[in-house]
Amino acid sequence: MSRFAPLPEPPYYAVIFTAQRKGADAGYGAMADKMAELAASQPGYLGVETTRDEGGLGITVSYWQDEAALKNWKQVSEHLFAQKMGREKWYDHYTLRVAKVERHYDGPEGR
Amino acid sequence: MSRFAPLPEPPYYAVIFTAQRKGADAGYGAMADKMAELAASQPGYLGVETTRDEGGLGITVSYWQDEAALKNWKQVSEHLFAQKMGREKWYDHYTLRVAKVERHYDGPEGR
Repeated sequence: MSRFAPLPEPPYYAVIFTAQRKGADAGYGAMADKMAELAASQPGYLGVETTRDEGGLGITVSYWQDEAALKNWKQVSEHLFAQKMGREKWYDHYTLRVAKVERHYDGPEGR
Repeated sequence: MSRFAPLPEPPYYAVIFTAQRKGADAGYGAMADKMAELAASQPGYLGVETTRDEGGLGITVSYWQDEAALKNWKQVSEHLFAQKMGREKWYDHYTLRVAKVERHYDGPEGR
């Protein structure tokens, strides 16, 4: 299975989530799997790319069709996040940015 | 040194570079360091976040003030990339997306 998200026709949205994990797992893996599964079942979901290094810094970028999809996912994910009280438990720090993708390229075959 | 980029007042731009490395180093580390140093010295550079897992999938997001900064960085980086013939040598596949950041949050202290 490809770890790259598709490249639909722009514009579409990217949610860039950068997060520094705390050391212990504390149920994080199960939560992350559940979040990914839940995201993929939402309206307007386009795909996700995620990676994390040995130091615990992770970047997850999820892609969404439009503002309505973003709004729905914000409500669904915040509800789950609040339920699980994950923010303080799992992360030392995180940032979340919402950005409108205007253009894209892929390679290395050429642009 | 923080691995998080600053959060300037939106709007600003994100360049999302997702890339699957090939196995061998082949000078990649030196090139990556040089690229990071060069980016940081460009006009309109705001910061960068980067991580890569053991499977070789990396996500690097660089942040830029405006279209002029993007255009300058595209010229500078493509010139270096072409010089080094890095695309075929280093990556199995990559995608590069240009996106306008509309809003952001950080935590876990709260939104």
